[in-house]
Amino acid sequence: MTYTSLVTGGAGFIGSHVAADLVRAGHRVVVLDDLSGGDAANVPEGAHFHHGSVCDPEVVDGLFATWKFDYVFHLAAYAAEGLSHFIKRYNYTNNVIGSVNLINAAVNAETVRCFVFTSSIAVYGHAEPPMTEDLTPAPVDPYGIAKYAVEQELKVTHEMFGLPYIIFRPHNVYGERQNIGDRYRNVIGIFMNQILRGEECTVFGDGEQTRAFSHIDDVALPIARSIENPRAYGETFNIGGDTPYTVNHLAGAVAAAMDAPLRVRHLEARHEVVHAFSSHDKARDILGVGADSVSLDDGLAQMAAWAKKHGPQEPSVFSGIEVSRNMPPSWQALVVPSEQSE
Amino acid sequence: MTYTSLVTGGAGFIGSHVAADLVRAGHRVVVLDDLSGGDAANVPEGAHFHHGSVCDPEVVDGLFATWKFDYVFHLAAYAAEGLSHFIKRYNYTNNVIGSVNLINAAVNAETVRCFVFTSSIAVYGHAEPPMTEDLTPAPVDPYGIAKYAVEQELKVTHEMFGLPYIIFRPHNVYGERQNIGDRYRNVIGIFMNQILRGEECTVFGDGEQTRAFSHIDDVALPIARSIENPRAYGETFNIGGDTPYTVNHLAGAVAAAMDAPLRVRHLEARHEVVHAFSSHDKARDILGVGADSVSLDDGLAQMAAWAKKHGPQEPSVFSGIEVSRNMPPSWQALVVPSEQSE
Ligand SMILES: NC(=O)c1ccc[n+]([C@@H]2O[C@H](COP(=O)([O-])OP(=O)(O)OC[C@H]3O[C@@H](n4cnc5c(N)ncnc54)[C@H](O)[C@@H]3O)[C@@H](O)[C@H]2O)c1
Ligand SMILES: NC(=O)c1ccc[n+]([C@@H]2O[C@H](COP(=O)([O-])OP(=O)(O)OC[C@H]3O[C@@H](n4cnc5c(N)ncnc54)[C@H](O)[C@@H]3O)[C@@H](O)[C@H]2O)c1
Repeated sequence: MTYTSLVTGGAGFIGSHVAADLVRAGHRVVVLDDLSGGDAANVPEGAHFHHGSVCDPEVVDGLFATWKFDYVFHLAAYAAEGLSHFIKRYNYTNNVIGSVNLINAAVNAETVRCFVFTSSIAVYGHAEPPMTEDLTPAPVDPYGIAKYAVEQELKVTHEMFGLPYIIFRPHNVYGERQNIGDRYRNVIGIFMNQILRGEECTVFGDGEQTRAFSHIDDVALPIARSIENPRAYGETFNIGGDTPYTVNHLAGAVAAAMDAPLRVRHLEARHEVVHAFSSHDKARDILGVGADSVSLDDGLAQMAAWAKKHGPQEPSVFSGIEVSRNMPPSWQALVVPSEQSE
Repeated sequence: MTYTSLVTGGAGFIGSHVAADLVRAGHRVVVLDDLSGGDAANVPEGAHFHHGSVCDPEVVDGLFATWKFDYVFHLAAYAAEGLSHFIKRYNYTNNVIGSVNLINAAVNAETVRCFVFTSSIAVYGHAEPPMTEDLTPAPVDPYGIAKYAVEQELKVTHEMFGLPYIIFRPHNVYGERQNIGDRYRNVIGIFMNQILRGEECTVFGDGEQTRAFSHIDDVALPIARSIENPRAYGETFNIGGDTPYTVNHLAGAVAAAMDAPLRVRHLEARHEVVHAFSSHDKARDILGVGADSVSLDDGLAQMAAWAKKHGPQEPSVFSGIEVSRNMPPSWQALVVPSEQSE
């Protein structure tokens, strides 16, 4: 039997890898992406690409009517956590309303066997690391609040309508096809792009904040495969790398991978969680996936080779800022308030 | 000094009472209401009425620019908790996006001394009653999830931008100016309207589910006055009546207040919380308000007198249903799916 799967955000980083894994597994794959952050060139061969937004219920309902999806992998989002304070409406529209359009359509379709959602480690907020899935979420920014609302929505929808779901909470994913031109997220991509452009690597604060970085291979394949594992249904999984590094260490490792001298410029600290890494014991137990199957140095070397081939990117400026108070000065210098952007 | 206050939903039930209290306290009051559930006749004399939606950022930003509000009382919402499963998009748009438009505007204005928000007891979900404010919310329907997201949003906005706030979680409020024509909420209003129309009172399930009912006088004035109390800032309060009654008891009490024979028809049970009542110790301590200052029988007698004068209402049918599966049959018979409603 051939399954038909929808991958939203499949022209983006993680989504394009999930879509490729599903194509390889023999699924008929439809990608829905509005290209706000992705690139049509990322859509894997063999997948059908539909250019449109999850925020448009007509587009969403139309696709469900045409394709009668067996599986939905919902990865479309604007994932700039730090920027989400300044674009609250955009954040909740894309991340909550968009998700709800898909959930409505999945319930109405009555064909969907599983709805797979990428939430984020952001739901944990200031929780003491390592974060485990049984902690009650307490997000500290609009991005995390929106992801948590969708997680709750999936649970309630399962109770009320029986829609099966699996939730993933990835963190700090990096690798090929990442958008290295986004100024507001993906520290590894930002460093690589800065190096390619001959700029200094910019670090918020003293750089002693720690993050565990996740190679895309430790994230995309477990997401794509999860639907085959009955024990995964109804569950929430942290997923990704285990080992925390400081941002300072990371800058050095990226420079080494890029074969470039390390040049760092420290910026004023921004409002962010200092230490964030999560436990992956549950993913190991139930999904049988190992974190850090690709080491940071190997992963960076692979990504660096791709980034050099891909070339430097013009950093994109987000033009729909809703609130510009208290924004990190380095961002503020870049942005055009929305009223002035037309 | 004359304060200028915005009351969203001020043409609705609770909002019109809050607006009236503020007018009496000498505030310049602006009401923003889209009349989706309210009535312009409810807007108190002396208040400026603006017909428009909180979902429209241009309307919201325009009002803030014109009036430079000192206080925002945000009561606009579509509050049909039970129906929210079937109108998820409408629920999140009205209740989250609408709230975020106001929060953005309040942050940008830099004049707002306090943002007062009416959340709901719905955030507690299946928690063991009596619910206290220190419980971690765990809502079980889209309405509760949306209210909880806005509560979190206010906390995060306070941390990031210093916007002061006060959150209220009322429950089962009744009294004059309630919309008794809404089929999907306000059991007391529904019973009164059914009696006025010579119909049986419809009860979901066996009627042994309990609720504590809150007279409007125990709710609106404490909300309006809260801004004068520095200890209330940054706090969340349950507010309303203390004494739980079964819906069966309530039906009898309403019939008595209306001076009508009790005729009840039981409908299939719907997906709802069985026992819900909350502790009001914190409101008593900090706000100095007593719950049940108006007894159920007195409150019902007052409201019954008003309802008889106001007359029976044609029950409104919600025409934008997004999902009609698993809806209580008594509702399903009434609704027109949105595709067919145009
Ligand atoms: N990369 C990470 O470290 C990380 C961490 C935690 C969670 N996530 C989540 O994983 C998912 C994928 O993230 P990513 O890193 O691949 O980001 P990405 O930006 O590369 O991919 C997101 C894709 O979604 C598309 N998109 C955005 N809004 C859309 C809309 N309204 N309609 C249709 N398409 C839309 C973008 O064009 C983009 O192609 C997101 O949900 C994100 O929140 C990512
Ligand atoms: N009545 C209760 O028992 C109860 C319990 C808990 C919480 N609440 C909350 O209290 C608030 C007031 O509830 P109520 O019982 O007075 O309901 P209501 O329906 O009488 O009042 C809500 C008002 O908001 C208006 N409105 C709705 N959407 C709007 C929009 N997008 N833009 C502008 N106006 C809009 C409606 O026209 C209506 O006048 C709501 O936030 C509700 O969630 C009420």
